[in-house]
Formats: sequence, C-alpha cells, structure tokens
Amino acid sequence: MRVITLLTDFGTRDYFVPSMKGVILKICKDVHIVDITHEVPPQNIRRGALILWACYKHFPRDTIHLVVVDPGVGTERRPIIVRSRNYYFVGPDNGVLIPAAEDDGIVRVYEIEIDKISRSRKISRTFHGRDIFAPAAALLAAGIDVEKIARPIENYERSIVIERPRRTGNMFQAQVIYIDRFGNVYTNIREEDLEGRPRNIIVKLGPDDKVLNLPFVDAYGMVPPGHDLALINSEGFLELSTNFGDFSKKYNVKELDKLIVMVEY
Amino acid sequence: MRVITLLTDFGTRDYFVPSMKGVILKICKDVHIVDITHEVPPQNIRRGALILWACYKHFPRDTIHLVVVDPGVGTERRPIIVRSRNYYFVGPDNGVLIPAAEDDGIVRVYEIEIDKISRSRKISRTFHGRDIFAPAAALLAAGIDVEKIARPIENYERSIVIERPRRTGNMFQAQVIYIDRFGNVYTNIREEDLEGRPRNIIVKLGPDDKVLNLPFVDAYGMVPPGHDLALINSEGFLELSTNFGDFSKKYNVKELDKLIVMVEY
Amino acid sequence: MRVITLLTDFGTRDYFVPSMKGVILKICKDVHIVDITHEVPPQNIRRGALILWACYKHFPRDTIHLVVVDPGVGTERRPIIVRSRNYYFVGPDNGVLIPAAEDDGIVRVYEIEIDKISRSRKISRTFHGRDIFAPAAALLAAGIDVEKIARPIENYERSIVIERPRRTGNMFQAQVIYIDRFGNVYTNIREEDLEGRPRNIIVKLGPDDKVLNLPFVDAYGMVPPGHDLALINSEGFLELSTNFGDFSKKYNVKELDKLIVMVEY
Repeated sequence: MRVITLLTDFGTRDYFVPSMKGVILKICKDVHIVDITHEVPPQNIRRGALILWACYKHFPRDTIHLVVVDPGVGTERRPIIVRSRNYYFVGPDNGVLIPAAEDDGIVRVYEIEIDKISRSRKISRTFHGRDIFAPAAALLAAGIDVEKIARPIENYERSIVIERPRRTGNMFQAQVIYIDRFGNVYTNIREEDLEGRPRNIIVKLGPDDKVLNLPFVDAYGMVPPGHDLALINSEGFLELSTNFGDFSKKYNVKELDKLIVMVEY
Repeated sequence: MRVITLLTDFGTRDYFVPSMKGVILKICKDVHIVDITHEVPPQNIRRGALILWACYKHFPRDTIHLVVVDPGVGTERRPIIVRSRNYYFVGPDNGVLIPAAEDDGIVRVYEIEIDKISRSRKISRTFHGRDIFAPAAALLAAGIDVEKIARPIENYERSIVIERPRRTGNMFQAQVIYIDRFGNVYTNIREEDLEGRPRNIIVKLGPDDKVLNLPFVDAYGMVPPGHDLALINSEGFLELSTNFGDFSKKYNVKELDKLIVMVEY
Repeated sequence: MRVITLLTDFGTRDYFVPSMKGVILKICKDVHIVDITHEVPPQNIRRGALILWACYKHFPRDTIHLVVVDPGVGTERRPIIVRSRNYYFVGPDNGVLIPAAEDDGIVRVYEIEIDKISRSRKISRTFHGRDIFAPAAALLAAGIDVEKIARPIENYERSIVIERPRRTGNMFQAQVIYIDRFGNVYTNIREEDLEGRPRNIIVKLGPDDKVLNLPFVDAYGMVPPGHDLALINSEGFLELSTNFGDFSKKYNVKELDKLIVMVEY
C-alpha cells in the first residue's frame, strides 16, 4: 500500500482537492492519501517548499509527494517528477519541490509527458492538479515505471527558502523564515550556529525595532504563561515564542522580516 | 475497497464529522473515506449541490457520495438514496443531491427506512448525519442491497443551481454561480455558449456597475501579476480572474450577483 | 485494519499533523487514520477533552485515540496511555484523555517509556506529538503489547469538563459548556435533569443579562427561519439555538458563561 501526500494552496472549501483524490482513487485504489496541508497562501511557492521540506522525510520510503502550488499553470512551465533517494516528488517546475528533494538527495528529474498519462481526457489549462499531477502520482503509486510517463531532463528551477544568517561574533543578522499557527517565530539560526547553550537571546524586531531579552529554555512550559522565551524547536531552529500566547501578533512580526539576534552565553 | 465521500456544512472544528466517520468504520472497515468539503456555508443547499456536481464524477464507479447539508433535519423531509448510473448518493430530500445525480443519470430514488438501518440505536432529531445517513452509506459500502434499507419513491425535491444566461446577440444577462478560494468568479456562461474564441470580454458588475474590458486568455499566467483576465476554466465556465490577485474582493462581487457580459470576437 | 484518530490543537496549515501521520505510516501501514479535529483552540485542554468525549465511542472497538493538546510539552508532565474497556487513549497526562476514558471505563493507566519507543531517534522538547505519541499509537496499532512500551502507574491528572448545574425547583444555575460552528449553545443541563417535556425555556444570559423565552421543540426547522428555540441535542444536552442563524453571536454568549434557566412545563 503506497502513500501519496497532497500539498496545495487550494484550500479545503472548494472541489479542487477532492477532485484530485477522486482521480487518484480511480487509477489506484490501494493507496493511502495523506493531506500535508492545503492552506499554503495562494501562489506562495516559498511557503509550500518549506512545509514540504519540514515533513517529507517522516513518510515511508517511496511515498509520492504531490505538490500543487502552481501560479504558472497553463503556461510554459513544465510538469515534473523528481526521483530522490527515498521519495518521488510530483509537481510544477517552479522550485517548490526542490528544497525537500535536495535534502533527500536528487537522483533524477523528469518532465511528465502529458500524452502518456491521459490519452483520452481533455487537459484543462487551469487545473493541472487534477488533469496532470494527480494521474501522474497515481500511476507511480500503481507501480508504473517513471520512464513510461516522463523523460529525463537536465535543468529545472531551483528555489532557496532558507538563507543563511550573517554572523559577527555572537551577533546574527537573521530572518524570520516561518510563523506557525501558534504564532511561534522561526529564525534562520540553527542549533549548530550556536556555540553551546545560550543563557539569553537578545533580539531586535518588528516595525519599531523593539529590543527583547528572552530567556533561553528547553520547552514552552519553562516560563510562566504569557512570558516570552527562546528555544531550539523541533526542526532545529532558534524560535521566539510566548508561553500560552502568540509571539508574532504580540510584536507584529511577519515572515521574511529581518532580525538582529545577539546570543548571550 | 469502496469509496465514501463526505460533503457537509459541519465545519471541521466540532465532533460532527469524526462521529460520522466512526459510525462508518464500525459498520464497514474496508472503505476509503474522502472528504469533499465540510465548509459549505451553514444551510447553503445550493453551494453544496454545486460542489458535489463539480467533483462527483472524478471518483471511481460505485462511490457512495454522502451529503449532509440539511436545514430540515428532524422535520418531515425524507432521508433518501439516489442510485444513478455510476454512483450512489445519500442525503436529505432537499435537492442537494439532484444536480450531480441528474448529470450522471438518475436510475431510481429511494427513501431510507430508518428502522432497517438502526434497530437498536436511538435516532437523534438533530444529527441524522451520524444516526441515519452514515449508517446507510456504510451499509451500501458493505455491499448490502439498497432495497434492503430503502424503498423506491417517485417524487423528490429538485434544485436548480445553474440557471441558463439570457442572450441577445453577443450580450449575455449572466449570473455569478461560484466564487472559489482564490476569488475567481465563475459566470453561468459556458464554453459552448461562445461562438469561437473571444478577443475580449466586457463585463458590467458589482455594486456600482463597474465596466471592465478583460483580455480573454488561456491561463492565469498569460497576463502580468495584478492584471485582470477572463478564461474558460476547468469546469467549462467563463471565469473572471486577477492573476496573483482576488478578483471578487477587488470588485466586490458576490455569488448570485447579476452580470452583463459582452463578448468581442 | 486498526483505526487511529488524531485530535490536536495544531491546526491544519503547518507541517505538524502530516509529520505525525508520516511517522505512524512508517511504523504501521495497515491503519485508518481519522482526523477528529485539529482546531482545538491552542492549549485548550477542556475543549479537547469535551470533543473527544463526544465522539470517541462511535469508533470501532480497539481504536487508538491519539490526542495532543499539550501545553506542558517538554516539562515534567508524563506521556501516558490509558486502556479503557474498548479503546486506547494516547496523550499527555494533563487530563485531556480522562473524561472520555472514564466514560468508557478505565482499565489501567500507563506511562510511556520513551526509550522503548524510539531507541534511535532524537526526541525534541517541543513536538512530542511526532516524537513520542505518534510512535506509541502506531506501535499499538501494529499489535505490540502496551506493557512493552509503557509501565502501569497509579496516579494521573483528572479534569472535569462538565460541571453539574445547580437546581432549585424548575430553576437551574447552569453553564455554557460548548458552542458549535453553527453558534448553537450547549448548556450543562441534560435531558434527564428535566421532568418530562418542557413547554418553554426561559433563560437569562449574555453580558447584559438578557431574558429570553424560547419555545422547546424537537428540531431546528420547527420554528421559522431567524427564530430562537431550545431543544435536546444529539448529545443529550439542553441547547439554545436560532434556526438558520447563530444564537451565540446574536446574544454574545461565550463558552463557560453562566446562565439562569427556568423550565416551564
């Protein structure tokens, strides 16, 4: 029983996602379909790439990750399949698949040959998720060889979703790379950028360059409710948070904001 | 392995949808349960019918489409099963099932006999999704004959979700039939209502009768970001859109708004 | 084929829930994963407990209910498994599992032994849903004996989510225990607290102690659209509602508000 994951910016209020699932099940019934999320902000390739990168690796070997964040649908951008060491990635050639696939190790990139996946059906110009990507993923899940439906290509679009922070001593010019539903603010500073365990994190942020001095702790519950903190989160990033609160709203922080971070050991 | 789809106005924050899924799995474990959507606006039969119509046909033959948009729950409205050429539809007799079932071709309509699906359990007056419709769908999925749990009826509620536009030459008195999460505005003008490929679409819309002249293109990405356009969408309707934008918010367009559309060839 | 349900406050826009599903499927593929909800308000243990209590029992015997509403993640609070008469419950020892498990009948409570479920992987301090609870649930689904991964304990956190109303004759000092997506207001008065069928429900509620006289009916559709009503809902509680409307918004009622309810027979 193979696994196909779905990651889109389609939301869950329309007929888009279930249409894709129907198409998949028509081709291959012996499959687990798992939603990653459909709440990627419309056309936000960067966020789709980052979410995929954060969770692709927890799925079983040979899982097919199907991603449709696709502002270029119907234009010249190509539909592709990326074979990495342990997974398949199916989606548009706009960079959204690449950070995850590169993290796993890209083996080969293919362009989907549309005439080989849907001889009979009409292909719309606006919904390749249903008409091209879902059939391609389902055919892979059914065990068809990738080279039967796609041809190897050499070039593809790349995307960089996490830039490295710039560092001067214990001071980082950093960036907000992600804000989760709890309002936790992920910086692009990784655990391995630190020199041992910090005592405090001093950060300058927000529209009016507010300066905060945050205790560095192991878990949210280590400070009283409503207090701010910094920690290394489950993805290995330095995170700014408020226990039982929403740090990003409290300080009006947005994704891609710049931060100055000073680490006190 | 049979497929049951779920389409409701229950949202996903309460215990309603999982209660239905639990009931289904208790009766029939060998089933794929697929959410169509649960975000139909409360009691909006028309929108439920339209979403069902747009995606029912992509599912495998003999899929059971279970729909609960049911403002009349607990009153005299009947619980029904519609057998169409390729599918079963289970839900209230309020018209929500009919546009999809008619599109597929209705074979027979049945009233569910409540005493035959739940001898033992108490039937609530407010949650037939859990107490009547889910067991009925699960029994069908388990292979029980529809006539064992329902009796044929001759009359049922109809609903018209898409009215035909009125046409004078190249001018249409049209209507907004759907607005998707991207803010794309679906008119009730179909591809086959056009006489060849338009050059431009001139449209009068919104609360202050704004007039727009939109290029007719094949795909969103054919105009620069922020620009408006018209195209034939994946469901075959003339759609008004903004590339990388939300057309419906930009021009304050609502579902069921009237439109004047002039097609320039 | 076993069933694992997921109930969290993680929302559906991030990588949290799919990471847990991936971990589960890596350990045990022969499983139905069913979302209860992920829209529990952040850290709201009471609401998570109540939703679990309302739907756990509709699932097949031996379903594993996995719950992550876990403000104490990474602190001293213990990860536990509760074996009840018909189900397993997996989650933090903060009371969230207990009302459902007690309703079913608790057989034994266990503390998960972390070193026995993930010898190799690093355990984060902020995402035990992925690193502890999901593997534990998947191992149970795969048929491993609970005592292989957890040891019996005697004490655990309790929580009371529904307090009994105080009663004087036909007058109740009651409480709002739940408000659903439709704005229906659930009181803590149960059907068995009533002495036969009421004629009217007089209720004092909201920020300015508004007094309403509501007809007691069987179903929403028994009053005209826009009219208020009271009924016994599908969970057996006295509920205040507006047909085709949102009672809670109309009268500005919040969860845990106090109510004075007078029953007229």
